[in-house]
Amino acid sequence: MALVLVNILSFGCKPNNNNDENNDLIVLKDQGSFTVGGTIIQNQGTYDGSKFDNFKPYPEGQTYHGDHAYVFYQIPDKARPLPLVFLHGAGQSSKTWETTPDGREGFQNIFLRRKYATYLVDQPRRGKAGRSTVPASIEPTADEQMWFEIFRIGIWPNYFDNVQFPRDKESLDNFFRQMTPNTGPFDNGVITNSLVELFDKVGNGILVTHSQGGLPGWFIGINSNNVKAIVSYEPGTYPFPEGELPQPITGRTGVLSGVEVPLEDFLKLTKIPIIMYFGDNIGEEITEELGAENWRTRQSLGKLFVETINRHGGDATLVELPKIGIVGNTHFPMSDLNNIEIADLLSDWLKEKGLD
Amino acid sequence: MALVLVNILSFGCKPNNNNDENNDLIVLKDQGSFTVGGTIIQNQGTYDGSKFDNFKPYPEGQTYHGDHAYVFYQIPDKARPLPLVFLHGAGQSSKTWETTPDGREGFQNIFLRRKYATYLVDQPRRGKAGRSTVPASIEPTADEQMWFEIFRIGIWPNYFDNVQFPRDKESLDNFFRQMTPNTGPFDNGVITNSLVELFDKVGNGILVTHSQGGLPGWFIGINSNNVKAIVSYEPGTYPFPEGELPQPITGRTGVLSGVEVPLEDFLKLTKIPIIMYFGDNIGEEITEELGAENWRTRQSLGKLFVETINRHGGDATLVELPKIGIVGNTHFPMSDLNNIEIADLLSDWLKEKGLD
Repeated sequence: MALVLVNILSFGCKPNNNNDENNDLIVLKDQGSFTVGGTIIQNQGTYDGSKFDNFKPYPEGQTYHGDHAYVFYQIPDKARPLPLVFLHGAGQSSKTWETTPDGREGFQNIFLRRKYATYLVDQPRRGKAGRSTVPASIEPTADEQMWFEIFRIGIWPNYFDNVQFPRDKESLDNFFRQMTPNTGPFDNGVITNSLVELFDKVGNGILVTHSQGGLPGWFIGINSNNVKAIVSYEPGTYPFPEGELPQPITGRTGVLSGVEVPLEDFLKLTKIPIIMYFGDNIGEEITEELGAENWRTRQSLGKLFVETINRHGGDATLVELPKIGIVGNTHFPMSDLNNIEIADLLSDWLKEKGLD
Repeated sequence: MALVLVNILSFGCKPNNNNDENNDLIVLKDQGSFTVGGTIIQNQGTYDGSKFDNFKPYPEGQTYHGDHAYVFYQIPDKARPLPLVFLHGAGQSSKTWETTPDGREGFQNIFLRRKYATYLVDQPRRGKAGRSTVPASIEPTADEQMWFEIFRIGIWPNYFDNVQFPRDKESLDNFFRQMTPNTGPFDNGVITNSLVELFDKVGNGILVTHSQGGLPGWFIGINSNNVKAIVSYEPGTYPFPEGELPQPITGRTGVLSGVEVPLEDFLKLTKIPIIMYFGDNIGEEITEELGAENWRTRQSLGKLFVETINRHGGDATLVELPKIGIVGNTHFPMSDLNNIEIADLLSDWLKEKGLD
């Protein structure tokens, strides 16, 4: 038996916040992928291969498996007890959490190096989980300047002065290319069910959501006892108990409503710590700027959600990053130029809550 | 500085073919993901955010980045010089090479443990590389019993007696769920271009293709000097020099043709070693069995391809696995029950060719 010395600086002698952490090796006990959840369409009749005609499908007796999630997991050696389960937002896949548009490490590597097991999800009907039980038409629709603004990189073609996003063309190209379309309609219930099954499989863990993934995130927390905390980067919307739904918030980018749930369900979210982070260049008042405006409404409703959770005995926090001195974050803080600092906030919070 | 002893059995003292290799740690120097290749649609006009109307897209001045590939790479510590670049087949993503349907390690982990850097591709218009410049309609079409037969697992609902595929329902469910649809038409040129760019980025490497990925594989080899060998599992079809195209092969599953290329292009494939593997239960004569028949035609044309490559001074081999005593392989030898043995064949071949 050979013994090999591997120099792993991160054991014991390195502060959490060291920017040099990516000079080290990543030591994995295991990694792999699987699909989870989903449903099966079973056609009537009896399958008969003699009906085959040049790959033209014929329905009798055939099945179709769809609406599952795809998950890629990595377990570091000597992993901390609670894994992080990452759920992306609209138009994205697990790529959100991987290498950043300018080639730095994303939350996948950062938290592996910090000894968290990571589970990166492609939600049902997205990315490698493309088999949808509902049809879709996919059109190449030029919309990237809109997303540049909605995601608060700047006002096209200008970047915000303080923005934590690289200014080179290649990084922006890469950022646009990490989008990937729905292969079926977004369905909160389908996504929730698949991730509840994922938590059945994984056991206790921490759910980390982004943007549109925020909504299924709350429902996953309601429906799985294995979710021990929810961390949400700029969630899209929120559940409220029956009879406590706030008035919809109207803004330049649409009318934003919460989602009413039975009080009994809502109370489950008061049993786990919840933290939300919002970045910079979000409006305080109604504005014509798309990004400032879109996230103004969602941050405002988020504050009402926090208030409601805490009024019912829960532990929710909404962090406005500029108010704690962290400026320039876009809608994608996990890949912004200061993503190590953003990860440090999460590490510190997990430690504070005894979840590390 | 802390030193940690990591017991890595695979250094120096373990035979290549040891089935216990998955008890060890995976030690990575780096991992990450990126997109590569693709094109940009640039609409005329000037983008104007004030035209925004509730996320309804408007075209003026907007862009759309599409037709790139998505790549997830992992570099083991002390990696061998030549990485393996894996390209999946029809209806699949990089999942082909990851965890098997019954939860064993796939080629991704097996070859990482053998110290090869791995690059796993989702080709343009598939998986996480879903932004296509050409529209698509995605229908949930029940077709899995057909694939069960085409992929030579058995004659539905029966498994082949010798098949190297697990018999439990869950494994078959997982196998079906690893399919994911095209988000735009399959385009050999688009795929080839993106992977040629990948090899520009990666440098010298070995291309490993499967099934429909075989065809772009040959063109990537023709168009990139960085491809140092091509390994192809049951490729779909083949290039031939102008004037040397064999007669199309007609079978129960359609008419199979080669693709004519200039002699000068074809000759580039004679400068690198090529190996192809075909599994079991492939017909010798015309048969009604879909899988036996489909791969009979493709294996037959493969033999003519090998003959043509070698007649022009190249080094191509087609291995019929049952003829070397390896029985029961489906169309997915990389995830079959004997996939360690299949990987060993590849390791041995790479060693023989001085590519390890």
